[in-house]
Amino acid sequence: MRLLAGTDFALRVLMLLAGAPPGRPVSVERLARDLGGLSRHHLHKIVQDLTALGITRTLRGSGGGVMLARAPDQVRVGTVVRQLEADQAVVECFRADGCACTLLPHCRLRGMLREAQERFYAGLDGYTLADCIPPLTASASIGASAR
Amino acid sequence: MRLLAGTDFALRVLMLLAGAPPGRPVSVERLARDLGGLSRHHLHKIVQDLTALGITRTLRGSGGGVMLARAPDQVRVGTVVRQLEADQAVVECFRADGCACTLLPHCRLRGMLREAQERFYAGLDGYTLADCIPPLTASASIGASAR
Repeated sequence: MRLLAGTDFALRVLMLLAGAPPGRPVSVERLARDLGGLSRHHLHKIVQDLTALGITRTLRGSGGGVMLARAPDQVRVGTVVRQLEADQAVVECFRADGCACTLLPHCRLRGMLREAQERFYAGLDGYTLADCIPPLTASASIGASAR
Repeated sequence: MRLLAGTDFALRVLMLLAGAPPGRPVSVERLARDLGGLSRHHLHKIVQDLTALGITRTLRGSGGGVMLARAPDQVRVGTVVRQLEADQAVVECFRADGCACTLLPHCRLRGMLREAQERFYAGLDGYTLADCIPPLTASASIGASAR
């Protein structure tokens, strides 16, 4: 099983933002640098998606950048991953546009997979972004010079 | 989150085999037909993988085909999915060949994802292939004319 590459990077962005001082936006350039060479184009798309979901907000202009829309302890990891993976089907028959599986009418596996998927998300629901802040991040990394 | 397409199809193959009469091999042609047009090449690869894992066995020659290596109630769905997805990393940093994520040394999310992934598999461990046999499969589908 795997998550979308976009979800993977979005979670890293959120960890960095969670470690930044509250109320202080972080520039996309800084995020790109801290994410070790993720392209700005890709990063812009991720930030756009997170902002559309209401998880981050962006401030334009000089001194602008990206910040969490809520405090880190108010953002459940499971909720974020659910939202980012909303269009992703665990197997073909979960796709919104249907599938060609001939077993579907009597398939019992589908329910099992749905239950297991819910367990996965419920596991992540036990944590918030506050639990993801690396020790010393605030002073050692983004905190000292957010931009 | 999603499973590999190969895992998706392998599970369908196993459901069909679980519904076939015990000890009676099912031909690859029959499986391909019941799976609604999956290519024989793809199906051969899937059967080869399942057999290498000891989940199915293949009988060559006239009257040959594929069958479960054990009774359906002896094959845990979670175990099968774990085996088929063994090389699949839930996020980049789970890859055996490492990753470039700069957050890794202090990352707490990694442990959360590992725990959630284990919950997913544990959910499927609660079921065996016997729980996946569609009602009436044995008589209505493969059972009546296994080849």
